[in-house]
Amino acid sequence: MRILGIDPGYAIVGYGIIDYNSNHFSVVDYGAITTKAHTPFEQRLSSIYCGMTQLISTYKPDAMSIEKLFFNTNTTTAIDVAQARGVIVLSAAQGGLDIAEYTPLQVKQSVVGYGRAEKKQVQEMTRLMLNLKAVPKPDDTADALALAICHAHSAGSMLGRIKVNGG
Amino acid sequence: MRILGIDPGYAIVGYGIIDYNSNHFSVVDYGAITTKAHTPFEQRLSSIYCGMTQLISTYKPDAMSIEKLFFNTNTTTAIDVAQARGVIVLSAAQGGLDIAEYTPLQVKQSVVGYGRAEKKQVQEMTRLMLNLKAVPKPDDTADALALAICHAHSAGSMLGRIKVNGG
Repeated sequence: MRILGIDPGYAIVGYGIIDYNSNHFSVVDYGAITTKAHTPFEQRLSSIYCGMTQLISTYKPDAMSIEKLFFNTNTTTAIDVAQARGVIVLSAAQGGLDIAEYTPLQVKQSVVGYGRAEKKQVQEMTRLMLNLKAVPKPDDTADALALAICHAHSAGSMLGRIKVNGG
Repeated sequence: MRILGIDPGYAIVGYGIIDYNSNHFSVVDYGAITTKAHTPFEQRLSSIYCGMTQLISTYKPDAMSIEKLFFNTNTTTAIDVAQARGVIVLSAAQGGLDIAEYTPLQVKQSVVGYGRAEKKQVQEMTRLMLNLKAVPKPDDTADALALAICHAHSAGSMLGRIKVNGG
């Protein structure tokens, strides 16, 4: 199963693509789609859509695992993140991917086994599980790989693991 | 100038298309793109995208006038409305439309001339300005037509009118 993990945003969309077969992970690609500040917002959405469709057509993932959004204090940013997320979800739907969404708590539980784990712990565990030499940068990319692992654990046939799919 | 007014949503996207030339309005089409409850959210986004691209390719508007989003108490709904709005803005950007956004206050000021006007007043004024026999239903459609009028006033060359384009 090939999984595309996505940490949504409008300035940085972190992505991480992994293959998960027989309880084994292998990394296919990871990085970030970035858009420039001071660019009209609709152009940023177009760039994100193009980047996503390119990723999907190149790597043909079976599923997308994307962070569930919540509102925090910065609601102006949150609206724009949600608009970008809509475009990302559209691109995955058009590509025929299964779409699953997870909360940060679910990701922590899945990757570290502890819902109150710190960001560094999640990143280090992600690095170890994927056999990477260093934690990928930016954080959005590391988060996207953790989301992909979370979906592998959830959708995979690991006996006895609690299903954490929030979608 | 042909203007596509949009009242964004994920269950109902109100639209209203008007031509505005020499201070004269004529209505081209109006209605709503609707999506069914209990449908996977990504399918609702796909339906909205398809509906929008069909509208744009059929009527070839020059500009889209869309309501600016704010957060209210129902933040769960607001996230999903914002995701749908992202897809709508994407479709307009891909169609090469100019995109303008307006607050409800700006629409009221533009249509009724009074920012604290009631919904009914805005609807009745919209009906009169567009020479319609009845206020279009649902409200989302009437709101979309009001947004189109607001942009006509803003982008048009009406001497002495304050520019209300918030985008």
